[in-house]
Amino acid sequence: MKRETRNMADELLQRIDERRNPSVVGLDPSFAGIPEWLKARVYDYDNPFEGIGAALAAFNKMIIDAVADVVPAVKPQTAYYEQYGSAGLKALEETIRYARGKGLLVIVDAKRNDIGSTAEAYASGYLGAVATARGALPSSLNADFLTVNPYLGSDGLEPFLQACKQYSKGMFILVKTSNPSSGEIQDRVIESGVTVYQAVAEYVAGIGEELVGQRGYSAVGAVVGATYPHEAESLREIMKKSIFLVPGYGAQGGSAQDVVPCFNGDGYGAVVNSARGIIYAYKREPYKSRYRAEQFHLAAREAAISMRDDIVGALQRAGKAPEW
Amino acid sequence: MKRETRNMADELLQRIDERRNPSVVGLDPSFAGIPEWLKARVYDYDNPFEGIGAALAAFNKMIIDAVADVVPAVKPQTAYYEQYGSAGLKALEETIRYARGKGLLVIVDAKRNDIGSTAEAYASGYLGAVATARGALPSSLNADFLTVNPYLGSDGLEPFLQACKQYSKGMFILVKTSNPSSGEIQDRVIESGVTVYQAVAEYVAGIGEELVGQRGYSAVGAVVGATYPHEAESLREIMKKSIFLVPGYGAQGGSAQDVVPCFNGDGYGAVVNSARGIIYAYKREPYKSRYRAEQFHLAAREAAISMRDDIVGALQRAGKAPEW
Repeated sequence: MKRETRNMADELLQRIDERRNPSVVGLDPSFAGIPEWLKARVYDYDNPFEGIGAALAAFNKMIIDAVADVVPAVKPQTAYYEQYGSAGLKALEETIRYARGKGLLVIVDAKRNDIGSTAEAYASGYLGAVATARGALPSSLNADFLTVNPYLGSDGLEPFLQACKQYSKGMFILVKTSNPSSGEIQDRVIESGVTVYQAVAEYVAGIGEELVGQRGYSAVGAVVGATYPHEAESLREIMKKSIFLVPGYGAQGGSAQDVVPCFNGDGYGAVVNSARGIIYAYKREPYKSRYRAEQFHLAAREAAISMRDDIVGALQRAGKAPEW
Repeated sequence: MKRETRNMADELLQRIDERRNPSVVGLDPSFAGIPEWLKARVYDYDNPFEGIGAALAAFNKMIIDAVADVVPAVKPQTAYYEQYGSAGLKALEETIRYARGKGLLVIVDAKRNDIGSTAEAYASGYLGAVATARGALPSSLNADFLTVNPYLGSDGLEPFLQACKQYSKGMFILVKTSNPSSGEIQDRVIESGVTVYQAVAEYVAGIGEELVGQRGYSAVGAVVGATYPHEAESLREIMKKSIFLVPGYGAQGGSAQDVVPCFNGDGYGAVVNSARGIIYAYKREPYKSRYRAEQFHLAAREAAISMRDDIVGALQRAGKAPEW
């Protein structure tokens, strides 16, 4: 494989500028969440998992078509596909390919972690190419960014960093997650007087230096939950050049105001994710009375636009919006 | 789904007794490791990933047939399948089904981690049943044990614990991993004067109480690397009822002597894994001169027996072998 020279942080910022939007849509479709009419159309009673896989892919494609000019990226969460085994993973492959074909970047939220050749296999699978009898071929799950878990230490992260360099891709390392119990390990104060999440952040900032693009941001980013705005502020200081992937907006309780500390003064440095709030917008007001279940994708589009306006509005009020 | 009453720790100990062997075989096959003759037989040049998937499954089945009466369980590592996308996951599905059909328990080493409904999706996918139009069906990746990562805290582990209860399955939580840099997070001393890994071990011991079987061991186990025998000794004290899944024997440098501290005085409490040392035994001496590449499975069988004798011998010398 030829070594490419583009930088994935630059690519992400370019798409954020084009859409004037730093928020992304989480593609976390579940059997229960897909409209009945769509399930009925693709469902295969003899091959239930294949039927669900087809439904997941069809659902995602309609969402992708509806938001492709609104958001810079989509973030499929692997669990929702993997639970249906190979049939589910086929839907994930189709989703990744389709989204990239529509000019979106794809952040695969898999929180993978391992060491040595095992970590290399994950990195090849999600960010690069794999060995075949026809030589190295791009992997079928080939995405732009991958989320990874740091519990195993640097030799669990190094293979992912190498893949990011080799294939010009990016990753987001879990630093401070959005859930209520995230502090049980992440907030513990260690010998040096910093917390575990701060120590991880220092590591992320360090290795991130190797992959800083022309816009000043690194392809090595960090997951920082919207539900911890105070911690986000201190993390912004430690990881000035890292892009934060911010879960927890919307369904998990984080507001637009809460995500503002995740951004730098230049208005960049974060992408905010919402999944259920967007893809299932058709199930709740004000969208439910405006759209039929056949129009779930239009509800998703309107919810995505509303999210964009909510976050950009909060950035503007804080004097942090980019000069668009 | 009817709630079953068996306990997965009891199941594992029963198979350990039947085989008189506490070691397991890691099924981590790579394209490069599969013998050429087998690749040539199943390879499909028009569908390279499907061809590799077929090769992985065929390789594993021959290994499983050869070791089914030697080891209590096999441990496929998801990365080696996932890197080939849906075709690879199909091989994992076949491997799991085939191994269970041969009376082996299956430990899926996926190190999954997430929160809320996402963690539930992983737990359903690997330990339980998933929703379909025909009602809940056993998942296609339905295994007996799953490895999970604790960095997100207890609400990232709770959904897996619930699945273990509901479906009578087990899990191994990463506590102290075998790699050189595992200490970067895991060994940090926190406020209470214990290390992060000791704090995780206390948590594992606590939740493990809810799933203790008739033999006194819990279906909630811990991953503890063979490369840290001193730490294993202290962890054995904290998690008396937990079964340790022990990586790092063989290829990573851990010896039979090193794994002895992972066992309790009764000779139980650990399963030791080796992957490359067993499945690729045909590539190295003394097996290489004894077996042709067509007999890679017989080399694997002999290596598995040798591993068993090595570990049981070390336990006997330490006065820790069960009364078989």
